[in-house]
Amino acid sequence: MGPTQRAEPRETTLARMIALLEEAAAKGAQLVVFPELAFTTFFPRWLLSGEEVESYFEPAMPNPQVQPLFDRAKELGVGFYVGYAELTPEGQHFNSAITVGPDGIILGKYRKVHLPGSVEPREGARFQQLEKRYFEYGDLGFPAFRGAESWHRPVMGMLVCNDRRWPEAWRVYGLQDVELMVMGYNSAAYDPNGGSTENESIRTFHSTLAAQANAYMNATWAVSVAKAGNEDGSGLIGGSCIVDPNGVVVAEAKSLADEVVVAEIDLDACRQGKEKMFHFASHRRPEHYRRIVDQVGAQAPA
Amino acid sequence: MGPTQRAEPRETTLARMIALLEEAAAKGAQLVVFPELAFTTFFPRWLLSGEEVESYFEPAMPNPQVQPLFDRAKELGVGFYVGYAELTPEGQHFNSAITVGPDGIILGKYRKVHLPGSVEPREGARFQQLEKRYFEYGDLGFPAFRGAESWHRPVMGMLVCNDRRWPEAWRVYGLQDVELMVMGYNSAAYDPNGGSTENESIRTFHSTLAAQANAYMNATWAVSVAKAGNEDGSGLIGGSCIVDPNGVVVAEAKSLADEVVVAEIDLDACRQGKEKMFHFASHRRPEHYRRIVDQVGAQAPA
Repeated sequence: MGPTQRAEPRETTLARMIALLEEAAAKGAQLVVFPELAFTTFFPRWLLSGEEVESYFEPAMPNPQVQPLFDRAKELGVGFYVGYAELTPEGQHFNSAITVGPDGIILGKYRKVHLPGSVEPREGARFQQLEKRYFEYGDLGFPAFRGAESWHRPVMGMLVCNDRRWPEAWRVYGLQDVELMVMGYNSAAYDPNGGSTENESIRTFHSTLAAQANAYMNATWAVSVAKAGNEDGSGLIGGSCIVDPNGVVVAEAKSLADEVVVAEIDLDACRQGKEKMFHFASHRRPEHYRRIVDQVGAQAPA
Repeated sequence: MGPTQRAEPRETTLARMIALLEEAAAKGAQLVVFPELAFTTFFPRWLLSGEEVESYFEPAMPNPQVQPLFDRAKELGVGFYVGYAELTPEGQHFNSAITVGPDGIILGKYRKVHLPGSVEPREGARFQQLEKRYFEYGDLGFPAFRGAESWHRPVMGMLVCNDRRWPEAWRVYGLQDVELMVMGYNSAAYDPNGGSTENESIRTFHSTLAAQANAYMNATWAVSVAKAGNEDGSGLIGGSCIVDPNGVVVAEAKSLADEVVVAEIDLDACRQGKEKMFHFASHRRPEHYRRIVDQVGAQAPA
């Protein structure tokens, strides 16, 4: 998806998403992957009033303002992954994603675990990264689920944005025998405040590299989807890609605008990796992995 | 390093290694990385008599048959990593590696954790992969250590071959704040028995991809070194590379023969990743990583 400006009415964004869904369906897609926080601009870049923050959250899924997407997808018999800001009945806020089956049933739900950014705003900065302020850490872990019957019931896993750079997240899905990972992101193309030397090219490379290697090391397909382009003066990388279980990019976006990228996914391509190189039961040695759960931060030797 | 045939005398191989060391030192190298099982052919491809197996193992390190390499390195003031088959005084066998400082002192030792292959030979196969038969699983975990004073005491970690495809291994080093990972490998370029569709190109891609992504995700330099070429009819991939903490390959081998590849390593390049994107203390959520240590093999959802 291309950018969504803060002033863009939600109906406009939803109409763009429905147009993308229809184009994908016309090209034979059975599952469409939208980005993180797909219905709105990437609002954590702003320090906002409580009222404006709440306006970006979905009190239920679906709900009247997103219902037309659900309706059209069901009509077309197409499922979808979509990222959204979730407000629970108890008042909790999460950066969430769902996967919806071709019959409109929600097959799986995920809440972002690896929230980047900070709770407190950076003094004097034009752009913020306030995910740790607006969201709670995901509390569902990394729950794999089965895709739809008509997709041959693949084991699926979801991530949101920054999660895709964390091999722990992928491995927890790998240990559930995942065959198809789906994820959306909004990743800065550069430091919008001018403070970093990492340019758009290296940042796009990192995004693709993480998808490729983690797909390979877990012998799974991966679909990694950007919200891209310039949102109110802050650039987002593109690089949406579909990666096979060898880590090879089989299709990728060419623009930073709304664009449909399609690939056929052969689930059997996961078998070679899962049965040989990455046959976990034969080769993993968890007795040596304790630090991964026993400590949070790095501790250098003396 | 290029291939070492089963019939090649150990003195010949050692002389090649000393020549490589001298060429590297002449090009300014302070640390030279040799491959896995560098002193001999990759003998786990053969089902061997007990006597021949034992002939490939080092009863101490150093020992008279490798001493000339240690002596020359110390003369030149160059340190090195080398992989070798280790026989302990208690009679245990490991696929090991050491890093030696410029003064000839052993700075760190590692025993391969992720042994591929099988205990029992594959019936009727010309070539075997019998690492699980000839070696015990490494019992040292992934112990980071400090490099030499003249290298500015980087936090270093070692892996051997197949270990480099396992993100758990890298992460355990990452959690020790590793800045320089060194590893050697002998990786098949194709199935020497004719049973697989994975060709040399995709296998080399996998090797480089694993080094790149794991270096990036742990904000560390990585040096990944092949024994390459045709050993007695069984092909080994090349692809030796030096990767920066952005996951970018800064130098790589061009041949499958003895070849020196040099790069300057700026340890400060690790800081950006360690302090921002991969500041583990701020962003990791180990409470959701339990499966990584609580189960060995994959368990698919119902």
